[in-house]
Amino acid sequence: MATERPSRLRVFSLNCWGIRFFSQLCTQRYEMIGELLCQEQHDIALLQEVWSERDFLFLKRKLSSSHPYTHYFKSGVIGSGLAVFSRHRIQDALLYQYSLNGYPYMLRHGDWFGGKAVGLVIVDVSGLKAHVYVTHLHAEYSRAQDEYLSHRTVQSWELLQFVRHTSCGADLVVLGGDLNMHPQDLGNRLLRSHTGLRDCYTETDTFDVSTLPVTCLFSLFACPVFIGIITVCCSRQGCEDGHTLIADNHFTKKQDLVPFEKGIRIDYILMKGSQRVTMKCESLSTTKGPVADKPFPYSDHEALTAEFALLHSEDSRQRGSSDTLAVSEQMEVVAEARALVKEGLCQTEALRDKAMHLMFGALLLLLLPLAMAFLPCSCSCSFSTLGLLGAVCMVLLLSGALLYLLFTTHIKVLKETEDQMMLTSNDLQTKLTGCQLSGSSSLDGSPEIQPLSPFKREE
Amino acid sequence: MATERPSRLRVFSLNCWGIRFFSQLCTQRYEMIGELLCQEQHDIALLQEVWSERDFLFLKRKLSSSHPYTHYFKSGVIGSGLAVFSRHRIQDALLYQYSLNGYPYMLRHGDWFGGKAVGLVIVDVSGLKAHVYVTHLHAEYSRAQDEYLSHRTVQSWELLQFVRHTSCGADLVVLGGDLNMHPQDLGNRLLRSHTGLRDCYTETDTFDVSTLPVTCLFSLFACPVFIGIITVCCSRQGCEDGHTLIADNHFTKKQDLVPFEKGIRIDYILMKGSQRVTMKCESLSTTKGPVADKPFPYSDHEALTAEFALLHSEDSRQRGSSDTLAVSEQMEVVAEARALVKEGLCQTEALRDKAMHLMFGALLLLLLPLAMAFLPCSCSCSFSTLGLLGAVCMVLLLSGALLYLLFTTHIKVLKETEDQMMLTSNDLQTKLTGCQLSGSSSLDGSPEIQPLSPFKREE
Repeated sequence: MATERPSRLRVFSLNCWGIRFFSQLCTQRYEMIGELLCQEQHDIALLQEVWSERDFLFLKRKLSSSHPYTHYFKSGVIGSGLAVFSRHRIQDALLYQYSLNGYPYMLRHGDWFGGKAVGLVIVDVSGLKAHVYVTHLHAEYSRAQDEYLSHRTVQSWELLQFVRHTSCGADLVVLGGDLNMHPQDLGNRLLRSHTGLRDCYTETDTFDVSTLPVTCLFSLFACPVFIGIITVCCSRQGCEDGHTLIADNHFTKKQDLVPFEKGIRIDYILMKGSQRVTMKCESLSTTKGPVADKPFPYSDHEALTAEFALLHSEDSRQRGSSDTLAVSEQMEVVAEARALVKEGLCQTEALRDKAMHLMFGALLLLLLPLAMAFLPCSCSCSFSTLGLLGAVCMVLLLSGALLYLLFTTHIKVLKETEDQMMLTSNDLQTKLTGCQLSGSSSLDGSPEIQPLSPFKREE
Repeated sequence: MATERPSRLRVFSLNCWGIRFFSQLCTQRYEMIGELLCQEQHDIALLQEVWSERDFLFLKRKLSSSHPYTHYFKSGVIGSGLAVFSRHRIQDALLYQYSLNGYPYMLRHGDWFGGKAVGLVIVDVSGLKAHVYVTHLHAEYSRAQDEYLSHRTVQSWELLQFVRHTSCGADLVVLGGDLNMHPQDLGNRLLRSHTGLRDCYTETDTFDVSTLPVTCLFSLFACPVFIGIITVCCSRQGCEDGHTLIADNHFTKKQDLVPFEKGIRIDYILMKGSQRVTMKCESLSTTKGPVADKPFPYSDHEALTAEFALLHSEDSRQRGSSDTLAVSEQMEVVAEARALVKEGLCQTEALRDKAMHLMFGALLLLLLPLAMAFLPCSCSCSFSTLGLLGAVCMVLLLSGALLYLLFTTHIKVLKETEDQMMLTSNDLQTKLTGCQLSGSSSLDGSPEIQPLSPFKREE
């Protein structure tokens, strides 16, 4: 276990709500965010919804001394909105744009244009290799009738696969961002159970009392009399239950919170250590709407700040045992996700059928002006009328074709995700039962395979 | 160094040219490919251009005994065309669709619809963790005027980043596929220099003499007299210079080979071992157009088969020294790639400007029928004529808007790639000079940072 005085790492995450000409008081809020970051000197700041590159460049100038290393991830039409500011050197960056992200014709939602993605930066934190992920998932516009649920679930799957396969070799892993999911939502459980990432809010002993020295806190916890005081302290200083969308925020639309009047927790900082480094979340804090000496909050979301202790560790037993325990939970949650993706597949197939009907309808309608053109006696329509009708049919036909292409690509993504989930299920089953015959999607026969001379893993 | 009798791994790669109703003799060729794979019993077969799922399912049934583990990667409208058949258990799969892949309006090329991607399967090869990649990059339709060069370079960059960041923890890494690049093309050099993957064709001592037993080969090599015989044997049995597009192939269009009459090498099997396993390519062979006892070849591409020896190894010195040597080469090649991506960026910005002009033109044209509608005296046009004109303007406006969106997303991808390349350049520079102040794209100031208590990597 820990053998040395711990190093510290402070991570900040905020959805900046930076839609130029739409988000209220955008320029002033970026000024405030810049001031906060300059002043607080977090090691790493993870920002979402920095939609305008001009705003990113403003922050970059403002933070050039405090956070000299930055990366702004670009994707989609106006996205990805993801930015990282770091006090430590960024060695490398990689972007994975989610395959499903809403529909281009849903202009009033607009997520499609944002090119939602997960960005990875590899940061050298005093000799430690930190893999830091920042992400923003598709918004939830209606909890009762969430037409984007399958999209968000696929995004969660792609996020967890990306983290799983790119975090090997990291000394520490941090993920921050706006997941647009409640703590116990399927996508969130999927992410945590399959990556081993832990939620700072549930992991920390000291939510929102980060101003108190840690030694003092431990002594408080040791004495039952003071527990009440700590509770009071938490509820007074921070958002209840770690909410990041709250009614007290000047910019929050109250109807968006119904039926969660107290607030919603959709922004997260998740973390995990490695066999070399134990990562402990010593404190987590949130802003709470209004800002002292300022007329309005930083954003319509609350900001998160996590402080980690990094300890040398040679003991991997704990990790191993939790891995074993997690397998059955992983299987359950992946089965649930598969069912949801299948449902999304059926819905998308129905949409594709509708697009095909639109195409066929437009084709039939196109026959009408053609027939009228060849039968001039039966109709008094002018050439222009026929042309207009033809042009309308062509627009309908093109729209149908574009929609058909869109839904076909969505179906491909959903099928690919389902296949990957099945593969993972089978692999987990194999782990559980030790049966070497299960596995891929296509174990149809009873193969008689001559194995290579065995290499045994030393794990 | 190697301490045990080596295990063997045989890998097959083929671009199947499986465009239903377009590729000649598709059904018959899939029959032949299935027979070959059944008979040869490669450990892993990597197929590209299996565009139809029905053809994949045919192969899956046919190979259910010999290759019981499969994964078919799905992406784009009709893609990705990538399939893996394995004798060993596939544990997991992950897909990365390239961000740039031609243009949807280039219907006669059609790459855009293929959703070109790189697929990763993690295969348990007798206790070894093999990361096996299969990919297919954008085609080159004209070497003299290659309008897709920047797209293919971005794809190469994304491929190398994906391999770099997902291959950590693998005991062995194999990449097979149709890269659509000549051996010394920029994208190919970029891929090899930044991933450490080695080309089986240049690595193997015994190209196309795989039918001879290895022990016999070693004894032949020991005797200088027999070197001439081996050379003769190579040139007689295999494609010259490892070409995979050759004039001798029944399906190859001869004009596609000009000015490379002898053939082109665009299909590859690349590989690297790990600190635990030394991977040696013992032989590489290609098909050579016509197939014995068959009326036509397997495809318009030639198939590759590589045989690897896998040896236990504890000696990482060689790897370390080659890493150091490679840094300057990596810097050169990434600088070359950055220049090319910048050029692509300028071209795409010009295309976006054209799309904007189209939009403005259509808007101005739209004013014409509107003006005519409000000035009935000055024109004898009917309502229908105005409507037709309006509809045409709307179609032009929509087309302009769609193209504008398309090119805007392309610009985002090109900028992101350039930023990542700059980050990599700076990191390499830091490695070379040891200067801790260089690095990210945004080292603007002279920061005074208090470091954490140092963790030193033990590498």
